[in-house]
Amino acid sequence: MLSIQEALAALPDSPPPCTAESCALTDALGRILAESLIAPEDSPTFPKALMDGFAVHNSALTAPTDSAGLTELRVTDTLLAGQMPRSAPSPGQALRIMTGAVTPDGTAAVIPIEMTEFREAEPERLRVNPQELQAGMNILPRAANIAAGTELLSSGTVLHPGRIAALAEFGITTVPVYRQPRVAVLPTGDEVVHFSRQPPPGHIRNSSQPMLASQARSAGAVPILLDPVPDQPHSLADSIRTGLLADVLLLTGGVSMGTHDFVPQELERAGVRKIFHGIRMKPGKPLWFGIAQQDDHTCLVFGLPGNPVSSLVCFELFVRPLLCRLQKQPAPERHRAALTMDFSVRGNRPVCQPAQLSLCNGRLQATPLNWKVSADLNAITAANGMVLLNPEDEPAVAGQTVPAWYWYSNER
Amino acid sequence: MLSIQEALAALPDSPPPCTAESCALTDALGRILAESLIAPEDSPTFPKALMDGFAVHNSALTAPTDSAGLTELRVTDTLLAGQMPRSAPSPGQALRIMTGAVTPDGTAAVIPIEMTEFREAEPERLRVNPQELQAGMNILPRAANIAAGTELLSSGTVLHPGRIAALAEFGITTVPVYRQPRVAVLPTGDEVVHFSRQPPPGHIRNSSQPMLASQARSAGAVPILLDPVPDQPHSLADSIRTGLLADVLLLTGGVSMGTHDFVPQELERAGVRKIFHGIRMKPGKPLWFGIAQQDDHTCLVFGLPGNPVSSLVCFELFVRPLLCRLQKQPAPERHRAALTMDFSVRGNRPVCQPAQLSLCNGRLQATPLNWKVSADLNAITAANGMVLLNPEDEPAVAGQTVPAWYWYSNER
Repeated sequence: MLSIQEALAALPDSPPPCTAESCALTDALGRILAESLIAPEDSPTFPKALMDGFAVHNSALTAPTDSAGLTELRVTDTLLAGQMPRSAPSPGQALRIMTGAVTPDGTAAVIPIEMTEFREAEPERLRVNPQELQAGMNILPRAANIAAGTELLSSGTVLHPGRIAALAEFGITTVPVYRQPRVAVLPTGDEVVHFSRQPPPGHIRNSSQPMLASQARSAGAVPILLDPVPDQPHSLADSIRTGLLADVLLLTGGVSMGTHDFVPQELERAGVRKIFHGIRMKPGKPLWFGIAQQDDHTCLVFGLPGNPVSSLVCFELFVRPLLCRLQKQPAPERHRAALTMDFSVRGNRPVCQPAQLSLCNGRLQATPLNWKVSADLNAITAANGMVLLNPEDEPAVAGQTVPAWYWYSNER
Repeated sequence: MLSIQEALAALPDSPPPCTAESCALTDALGRILAESLIAPEDSPTFPKALMDGFAVHNSALTAPTDSAGLTELRVTDTLLAGQMPRSAPSPGQALRIMTGAVTPDGTAAVIPIEMTEFREAEPERLRVNPQELQAGMNILPRAANIAAGTELLSSGTVLHPGRIAALAEFGITTVPVYRQPRVAVLPTGDEVVHFSRQPPPGHIRNSSQPMLASQARSAGAVPILLDPVPDQPHSLADSIRTGLLADVLLLTGGVSMGTHDFVPQELERAGVRKIFHGIRMKPGKPLWFGIAQQDDHTCLVFGLPGNPVSSLVCFELFVRPLLCRLQKQPAPERHRAALTMDFSVRGNRPVCQPAQLSLCNGRLQATPLNWKVSADLNAITAANGMVLLNPEDEPAVAGQTVPAWYWYSNER
């Protein structure tokens, strides 16, 4: 039986990444660039005024001033955003200019209108203080953001809204992104029925399936929900064969010590090479992991425990990092959180305890949630993460920092 | 001109929330419950074995033992998950039982197989140590998670994967959720063309639009992208009329000090009641906000600055909290982060400085990003949040904590 660390280390470092596909920029939120993108033009493509005000000639910076310390300039034209300049500022003159407009050659500075003496009733008359002028002020020179040919975003970058803006600025309307991994979710068990059905006596609904499907979505994958399959080798074999067509196959149930736990044998019969079965942890002890390789296609296979909290924890600890790697992303970080209360765990395995994580005054803290058993509803509805507690250590006290993970996100 | 705090306080506390709609559970990730949901049945509906092992009668706990400290029991039946019990354990006997199976009445404990002496070759013979038995061990009694009629999830709860599991367990396949707010995004400006087009000289692409649309999506809203409109009162009036049909209308551009900034007047002409125009902050000074009320329909209207970093910051600071309130959600928290470097800002307005936020050893830290001007590409691509710095304060030093916000998420 592996430790948690050994199991994490046994997961493939660099599984074959998903291939690239094209995606419209407006659909690209959260997608991951599969190639570097180069700026096809300068940004900006023209020198640009950054404030509403007046474009002045270099001589204004050293012009003689009156007793009020001001110099007077004659406003000869107005430049709106979107217009090409008709003239350039010359000594003693200024051009009224709006934010975003092209600054003509020969503009030394753009002084904001708030810093001038100007009245709309006398639109040709402008008074400014030369001491408040700095060469280049409020002008964004051509290519000041980026020059054509420079790398704009690198491969592996997640497309968040700011980056979407950057690409739109350059007219990049479709982007090459990694295909989203396909994750097949296959519930097993004689006692399990589809969650839309009324269970016969002694049966339960497959609540893990929509949960794991949502977790897969939150990890940037596309879930494929397969019908629940009973504890019968032939039925399992058929469903497994279908599931192996995906990039990742998650089975739930059938991996423990029960007499009708056929999942490991049927996976191996289907050609899945076992990497590990059994981890010294709670919950999640019977976790099974293997890799199926057929021609060019790889399928990463997890046999998750049957109960929802166990499969939830195993997904967050083991499946999510692999889904990140398939998209050339770093796995979510393991943090350190300060416990908000004394908390001890019993038993002989490290415990991944569901918890509520929050930031308080810039410090990450964790409130472990009491659970009666692995199937506790409270833990599954109230928790947003988990902490790692070792029963072999001294009982943990409030304020002590412990390893902690957020659930449900690739980013945290 | 309002301060940031005054402007935040001026936003409606409780705007009319979105109405409720039905959503399939499998599509419900991230949606928000519009009503409380009650458990329609007990959980579990039957007493359940939590481990693979043996169900024993109460007498086993105090049975006489041999010299090895063990007592011998005769295994009379096997209970698989999904089967209804045919018999109950009696003194001197045990039932083999699998995880998830119904524990018959009269079961005092389920002892895991690992804690017994048992060989498959002699399946009727079981030896256990009574001292290791505790009444109730490894049994989840009926209704131990929740009793029928108890509130399962309350109105306003965000549906994350664990909660989806909880609902699926009870066969709840559709859920009442708040309709997603519709956010119309309307770029204005003579110099602006749609981002798919090649801009004529002096023109730019409307990069803010796909950015704000993505931000809206990340806030749980549905973006509606309207065509860019020039700086002409009639055209603006038409587009505004369309935009007011949404729950939120975001205009970009046309709110500053320029001679062709018609947005405020056209909004007021369209019946939008101004709440504020102008905030003492950088970027974002010319931000305009108002509310349009017509019969039963409310539209919250923002006139955002034209340049992308400014509108990005204004969205995160002002629009996102309102979108959260429309869905009865708390706004993302304002955190405190420790600066990773000395950093000072100039000018006379508080600065929302783009920054990289990260958790390091459980502490939130922030690295402000140097930006040359409000339109800096680096700030918009590299930042994942912002910090608030006041030029009137002492220059901030590394280690000092400052107000900080994450971008792009309702949850952080």
